[in-house]
Amino acid sequence: MSDRITLADLPLRDDLRGREPYGAPQLSVPVRLNTNENSYPLPAEVTDAIAKAVGAELHDLNRYPDRDAVALRTDLAEYLTARHGRRITPAQVWAANGSNEVLQQLLQAFGGPGRTALGFTPAYSMHPLIALGTGTGWVDGPRRADFTIDGAAAVEVIRSERPAVVFVCSPNNPTGTAVDPATLAAIVAAAPGMVVVDEAYAEFARPGTPTALELLAEFPRLVVTRTMSKAFAFAGARVGYLAADPAVVDALQLVRLPYHLSALTQAAARAALAHADVLLGTVDAIKAQRDRIVAEVRAMGLTVAESDANFVLFGGFDAETGRRLWRDLLDAGVLVRDVGLPGWLRVTAGTPEETDAFLAALRSTRPAGDGPDASRPVTTD
Amino acid sequence: MSDRITLADLPLRDDLRGREPYGAPQLSVPVRLNTNENSYPLPAEVTDAIAKAVGAELHDLNRYPDRDAVALRTDLAEYLTARHGRRITPAQVWAANGSNEVLQQLLQAFGGPGRTALGFTPAYSMHPLIALGTGTGWVDGPRRADFTIDGAAAVEVIRSERPAVVFVCSPNNPTGTAVDPATLAAIVAAAPGMVVVDEAYAEFARPGTPTALELLAEFPRLVVTRTMSKAFAFAGARVGYLAADPAVVDALQLVRLPYHLSALTQAAARAALAHADVLLGTVDAIKAQRDRIVAEVRAMGLTVAESDANFVLFGGFDAETGRRLWRDLLDAGVLVRDVGLPGWLRVTAGTPEETDAFLAALRSTRPAGDGPDASRPVTTD
Repeated sequence: MSDRITLADLPLRDDLRGREPYGAPQLSVPVRLNTNENSYPLPAEVTDAIAKAVGAELHDLNRYPDRDAVALRTDLAEYLTARHGRRITPAQVWAANGSNEVLQQLLQAFGGPGRTALGFTPAYSMHPLIALGTGTGWVDGPRRADFTIDGAAAVEVIRSERPAVVFVCSPNNPTGTAVDPATLAAIVAAAPGMVVVDEAYAEFARPGTPTALELLAEFPRLVVTRTMSKAFAFAGARVGYLAADPAVVDALQLVRLPYHLSALTQAAARAALAHADVLLGTVDAIKAQRDRIVAEVRAMGLTVAESDANFVLFGGFDAETGRRLWRDLLDAGVLVRDVGLPGWLRVTAGTPEETDAFLAALRSTRPAGDGPDASRPVTTD
Repeated sequence: MSDRITLADLPLRDDLRGREPYGAPQLSVPVRLNTNENSYPLPAEVTDAIAKAVGAELHDLNRYPDRDAVALRTDLAEYLTARHGRRITPAQVWAANGSNEVLQQLLQAFGGPGRTALGFTPAYSMHPLIALGTGTGWVDGPRRADFTIDGAAAVEVIRSERPAVVFVCSPNNPTGTAVDPATLAAIVAAAPGMVVVDEAYAEFARPGTPTALELLAEFPRLVVTRTMSKAFAFAGARVGYLAADPAVVDALQLVRLPYHLSALTQAAARAALAHADVLLGTVDAIKAQRDRIVAEVRAMGLTVAESDANFVLFGGFDAETGRRLWRDLLDAGVLVRDVGLPGWLRVTAGTPEETDAFLAALRSTRPAGDGPDASRPVTTD
């Protein structure tokens, strides 16, 4: 073993040199509110069903899984149809190991060398990283100081940059707010290529928030991505999916790695979907904690973005205070997320006890004299 | 749903237009010998252990898995160390959803736009497809008519093309033969970039066949990929891995999708590795069938490539005869693989009964008068 070699000695791609891996700290802390996991473990009713479904696959694990995951896609289509009252067919659905892999496949098919993707920063930090990993150029689109998207500004940047793929994260991570329907319609109408609406947190949206699934019938270049990691409490199983025109699914078949979804993943996900009502039973409780965090943190005089997700972005203080607060909260046993947005932190809404711990830590650690500063322009890089 | 749209109407990448997805037929046939699966289902001793290990993960499936899969990589390193008698550390090992994903990550880090990869065709058909999917150029390197690699010719093409990544599949799929150690050493010495030795079938090699793991200490730009799909009878679980310099693993961390390996996959693979002796107990039986197929098909007067794998390439007939034979075998209930090499077919070595069925079908379906034609030059495209 030549242990003298470092990354700098290898013929790494130039555009990767000096980069750091994506890495939310995986720390062992009493209260983990940094990766927007669902804080509720799976109930016995569901783990029993998954154990049974997975167990039935083990004897024949010597065989490759269904390459097209037809049964799982059928179940996902039924879930979307039942939840949203618009018929989604299995041919419109594709699944992969987390929505990250779905997004990567989309950029492999519709982005890649010589093409660019555009997202409205700050948004899900993996969007530009997956663009980098697929050789797709990246353009940062603008947001207003309150993190909402200005439809006219969005259309302008789309017309000038002509991105092959436009990402709209809604509800937006890390800011929490769902995109305004009129703004989304304007973006979709202006985009010359594909529009990917990342709805990882859709199930947590406030009442009356529409889903982009409603636009699928009109726009064949629209893709809606979802995940089972959040509302379904299924982060450990890695199941993401999309709904789109069947032709989009055809396109992804050209770039997907064959047999990308294991037999265990397919079986586990189907068992979870068969218990969707039980698993999604935590969503209302989480939303209540989310709304409680918004209200109580605001009552402390901090700035808080509106949230349609299972997390809350709060802050408006200066960058140094933000960094110190993150550390102070960690010292108090509460891990929140520094999303790289100076002066802001993101906290996941979990159980009532976790909210208690977070709010108590925030009250005790917040340095006196930090008032809100909502008028300060937000830098997004 | 706009059901009038087809793939041609979408802004697909130009280099993907007109392509067909990778697709070994997934047909329901009595004897499936087309994807080099291990024909032996998992014994109860192992399925019980996997069920227990997976079951222990289910309650906390709401949490993301270990992003770095440290425990699994430790077990894989121990397996390689125990099997080959050279110490491989966990820092030298990386794992993903099948070796396809490992290969894709390697090309994302070391290939990509503006770079080329080179492989000695015919080899594993996913190598050029993964190059395409990652925007990496592809160069076909030469093989001799008997499918072995000519070291001098290999060095020459490497010097002229200067590929960023050289693939050597050993034992080679679909031809079956392991690369000659001197040839591999010459390739590694000549390559200006990374060399990836795809050893998916290493456990089936004939006695005395060295593994490229032995060269790791000398060459930090060497990567050896492996899979649990074949010898471990674990195709349905999707676990591939690599051994290389730790700096290579650092590089892959820049392009891997975070949390790419589910908690279920990590647990299932660890349980399987804890029973490696049991699972690998099928290897000798499969090698015996492999050697039997080689001998008996040769005795029929057909040309057969030497095999270090769990499959046999046979043929030497004309293209039309090859196509007809594939169909005739299928009609007789035996699915073999048309690997796109005119006049050759590939058959997986499975159970004695599967070999019986294959040989009987071959004897009954083979048109009279097709003698061997080993002197005929092999076209590889």
